[in-house]
Amino acid sequence: MLDELKNSVCAANLELVKRGVVIYTWGNVSGIDRDKGLVVIKPSGVSYDGMCPDDMVIVDLESGKVVEGNRRPSSDTQTHLQLYRSFPAIGGITHTHSVNAVAFAQAGIDIPALGTTHADYFYGPIPCTRELTQNEVENAYELNTGKVIVECLKDRDIDPIAVPGVVVKNHGPFTWGKNAAESVYHAVVMDVIAEMGIKTMLINPQASIAKYVLDKHYTRKHGPNAYYGQG
Amino acid sequence: MLDELKNSVCAANLELVKRGVVIYTWGNVSGIDRDKGLVVIKPSGVSYDGMCPDDMVIVDLESGKVVEGNRRPSSDTQTHLQLYRSFPAIGGITHTHSVNAVAFAQAGIDIPALGTTHADYFYGPIPCTRELTQNEVENAYELNTGKVIVECLKDRDIDPIAVPGVVVKNHGPFTWGKNAAESVYHAVVMDVIAEMGIKTMLINPQASIAKYVLDKHYTRKHGPNAYYGQG
Amino acid sequence: MLDELKNSVCAANLELVKRGVVIYTWGNVSGIDRDKGLVVIKPSGVSYDGMCPDDMVIVDLESGKVVEGNRRPSSDTQTHLQLYRSFPAIGGITHTHSVNAVAFAQAGIDIPALGTTHADYFYGPIPCTRELTQNEVENAYELNTGKVIVECLKDRDIDPIAVPGVVVKNHGPFTWGKNAAESVYHAVVMDVIAEMGIKTMLINPQASIAKYVLDKHYTRKHGPNAYYGQG
Amino acid sequence: MLDELKNSVCAANLELVKRGVVIYTWGNVSGIDRDKGLVVIKPSGVSYDGMCPDDMVIVDLESGKVVEGNRRPSSDTQTHLQLYRSFPAIGGITHTHSVNAVAFAQAGIDIPALGTTHADYFYGPIPCTRELTQNEVENAYELNTGKVIVECLKDRDIDPIAVPGVVVKNHGPFTWGKNAAESVYHAVVMDVIAEMGIKTMLINPQASIAKYVLDKHYTRKHGPNAYYGQG
Repeated sequence: MLDELKNSVCAANLELVKRGVVIYTWGNVSGIDRDKGLVVIKPSGVSYDGMCPDDMVIVDLESGKVVEGNRRPSSDTQTHLQLYRSFPAIGGITHTHSVNAVAFAQAGIDIPALGTTHADYFYGPIPCTRELTQNEVENAYELNTGKVIVECLKDRDIDPIAVPGVVVKNHGPFTWGKNAAESVYHAVVMDVIAEMGIKTMLINPQASIAKYVLDKHYTRKHGPNAYYGQG
Repeated sequence: MLDELKNSVCAANLELVKRGVVIYTWGNVSGIDRDKGLVVIKPSGVSYDGMCPDDMVIVDLESGKVVEGNRRPSSDTQTHLQLYRSFPAIGGITHTHSVNAVAFAQAGIDIPALGTTHADYFYGPIPCTRELTQNEVENAYELNTGKVIVECLKDRDIDPIAVPGVVVKNHGPFTWGKNAAESVYHAVVMDVIAEMGIKTMLINPQASIAKYVLDKHYTRKHGPNAYYGQG
Repeated sequence: MLDELKNSVCAANLELVKRGVVIYTWGNVSGIDRDKGLVVIKPSGVSYDGMCPDDMVIVDLESGKVVEGNRRPSSDTQTHLQLYRSFPAIGGITHTHSVNAVAFAQAGIDIPALGTTHADYFYGPIPCTRELTQNEVENAYELNTGKVIVECLKDRDIDPIAVPGVVVKNHGPFTWGKNAAESVYHAVVMDVIAEMGIKTMLINPQASIAKYVLDKHYTRKHGPNAYYGQG
Repeated sequence: MLDELKNSVCAANLELVKRGVVIYTWGNVSGIDRDKGLVVIKPSGVSYDGMCPDDMVIVDLESGKVVEGNRRPSSDTQTHLQLYRSFPAIGGITHTHSVNAVAFAQAGIDIPALGTTHADYFYGPIPCTRELTQNEVENAYELNTGKVIVECLKDRDIDPIAVPGVVVKNHGPFTWGKNAAESVYHAVVMDVIAEMGIKTMLINPQASIAKYVLDKHYTRKHGPNAYYGQG
C-alpha cells in the first residue's frame, strides 16, 4: 500500500544522511496521502544503514494508529500528525538535530533573517517556539510539541507556506514542504542559514536586512511573479 | 556555438560543487567571448547533478537576450552582464552563497586584509557594497546589483583586477577573473579568507597587517616583478 | 582468547576514525569480560590503518598485567582499569581528543545540558573533573586520572549509567557504555553536543533548559518507561 | 639523485592535501640530506594533482642554487634553507596556510598551551613571531622570514625540537621534524590544536594549564623516560 509514497519518504530519510544533517537515528521524515488520510513515516530508533521502503510505517492521520508496517513509528509521530492536521497545504515533514539549527533552539532565539539566502526560502525570521509547560511535557509530549509549533505560527500570524519551518525551544528544527523531499530540502537550507546567522552575529551583532530586500528575494522565487528557475 | 567556452563554463560550475562552495542550485558561473560579445552562463535554478555543456545558455552582452539554449539563463545574468560591460579586462564571473563570505555580506562589513593568504589574491580589503535602495531593488534588481558593485569599486578607487571580488550587502560574494575557472578559484579563496578573518577577529578584534606586507605578497604573485610559480 | 571481544573492540576503535573523532593515534577503546576479569584494549601509539583484532592487547583487570598480545597496551590503560573497577555496570570505555569536547576540558567547564539532544543520552551536565594535583600527575598519572573521574561522579552524586562520560580538565573526554561500541557512540554524541553547546553559548550565554524537559527526554529513551526505538 | 628523499618529500606534500591542511598550491614540504648538504623541495605554484617525485627540486643548502630539477623551487625555499642551517637536528620542514593556525598568525598571538593534546607535541605555547620590518620584507623577504623564526625561538630560549613549529605574524605556520613526514604530522597537529584553542578561548578566555601537566605529557612521549607507544 502507498508504495510510491513509501519510496519517496524512504529516499527523503536517506537524503538526511547524505546531506550531513543527521547522524545515527537523529531525524525522521514523513509524507502524507491526503486523499486516503494516511501518513508514511520512518520507524523509531532504526539506523539509516540499509533502510528500505518496506521499513516505513503507515499511520492514520486522525487516530495515529499503525495501519501497516512491522515496526513502531517514529516517537515524534504525534508531532508530525498534528502539523498535517493543522497545515492542510503541506505534504511532507522533516525533523533533525542538525547542529546549527539546534544552537538557535537551545539559545531560545529566532533564526534572524539577515540575507537573501534566508529570504529565498523563509519569508522572515524562523521562529523559535515558546518552552512547553511541565504539564505539556509530561502528558502527550509529542502531540503538544506539534500544538506549540502551530500556536507559535498562529500567534505571530505566520503562513506555514511562507515560513516552512521552526525551531522548537531546547529541542531542534521541524521543517515542512509540499512533499517529503522538499521538507528535507528546507531542513538542509535551515541549517546552512543558521550557520550563516551565527557567524554574522559574531562579527556584527547589529546586523539586519531591509524589509524590501526580503520581499524581493522571497517573491522572486515564490508566488505569481516568481522568475527564478525554469518557470 | 562557442563549444569550448560552454565546456569551460560548465566545468567551472561543477567545480563549485567539488570545492564545497555551493549546495543545490546556489551559485552560477559565466564566461565571455569578447570578440563575439557573447556570454555563456548557467541556466537558472538547475541542479548541478548531470549538468552538461549543452545546458549552458548564451546571451548577448549588450541586450541580455538569449542567443542559444533551451533554458532560461541564471536569474543573476544581468548582474554578470553589467560587470562584463564595466570591467573590460575580466573574462569570467562567479556568484555563490558560500557561508563565510555570506557572513561578511550579512554583517555588512568588508573582509579585512589580515594576512598573506589574503594579500596573495586580493590587494586590500574585500569591499562590502552599500545596501541597494528600495527603488533599486524593486526595479531592475539584478542590473542594479551589478551597478552597485561597479560603483563600490569606483568610489573606493579599487582596480577590479587587483581586488577580484566583492560581497554585496545582505546577499553574498561575486568574484571574477581572466576566465570562468579563475573566477571560481577566487570564489573558493575568498571563502577560506573569510573563515580565517572571522576566526582572527574572534581571538583578536584589533588584528591588522602592515601595508608593506600586503604590497610584498601581492606583487610577489602579480605584476611585472612576480616571482611565484613557474614564470 | 576472547576472540569475539577482540573483534568488537577492534571494530570500535576503527569506528572512531570513521566517525571523525580521532586522527592519527589519538584515541583508544577497550571492552571487558567481567566473568574472566580481563580487559581488551588498543595497543599504545599504533596507527588505525590496517589495525586488526590480533593487535589488541589483553590485560588483567586487577593487576593491569598483559595476559596476551605482543604489544604494549594503551598508555591510558590504568585509567580504563580504574573505571572498570569502580563502575561495575559498564562494559566498554572510549577516550578521544575530539575537538569540541576537548574545548570544554581545556576551558575547565561542564558541557551544559541545554537541549534534548543532550538529554537523550546524558541526564544532566557532563562534568569536567577537577585538575589533578602535581603529586597525582607525577606519580601513577593514568591511575589517578581514573580516580579523579570516579571522585568527580561520586562527589556530585552522579550515576555513571545516567551520565556515561566526563571531560578530564585540560585533557579530554572519557565515555563508557554497556560495551565498546556503545562507549564509542557516546564519544561521538558528546562531541556533537559539545559543538552545539559552544555555538549556543556564543549566541546566548544565558541559555538553559527546564529540569522537566531533561527528565522527559532521558526517561523517554532510558529506564522502565522508555518508548523510543523498537522496544 | 636522492630518489628516496624525493619519494618521501613528494609523499609528504601529497599528505597535506589528504589531511585537509592545504588547498590549491598553498603549502610546501622539504626534506634534507645532511651528508650531501642538499634539500629536496616542492616546485613553486604547482598543483598537487598528479605531482610525482620527479617534480621535486633539489637545491644546495648553502647557496640555494638549483642542483637538479626542471622547475623553479618553492618561493619559500630561502625560509626552509635558513631553518635547516640554524636547526641542525631537523630533517624536514612544512609550510601551510591551514585556517586555524593562520587565525593565530593573523591575530598576532601565540597558540596557547591549554591541554594535553598540545603538550603531547609542543612543550609550551607555539610562538607567534614578531612582525618583519619594512626593510626585511622588501629585501630578501623569504630569507628574513627564516631569520625571524630563528630569532623568535632564540629570544625566548625555545628548543626547536621541543617546540617544532611557529606561526609567522600575518602569514602562517611553519613546522619541522626529524623528516618530511614528521613535519607534516606537526603541521596537521598544530592546526587541530589551534582549532581547540580558538574554541576554548571563546568559552573561557581565562583558560590555562598547570606547568606540571605540560611537563608530564611532553615527557610521557619524548625523551629518555617516554613510555607512550611501542618503545
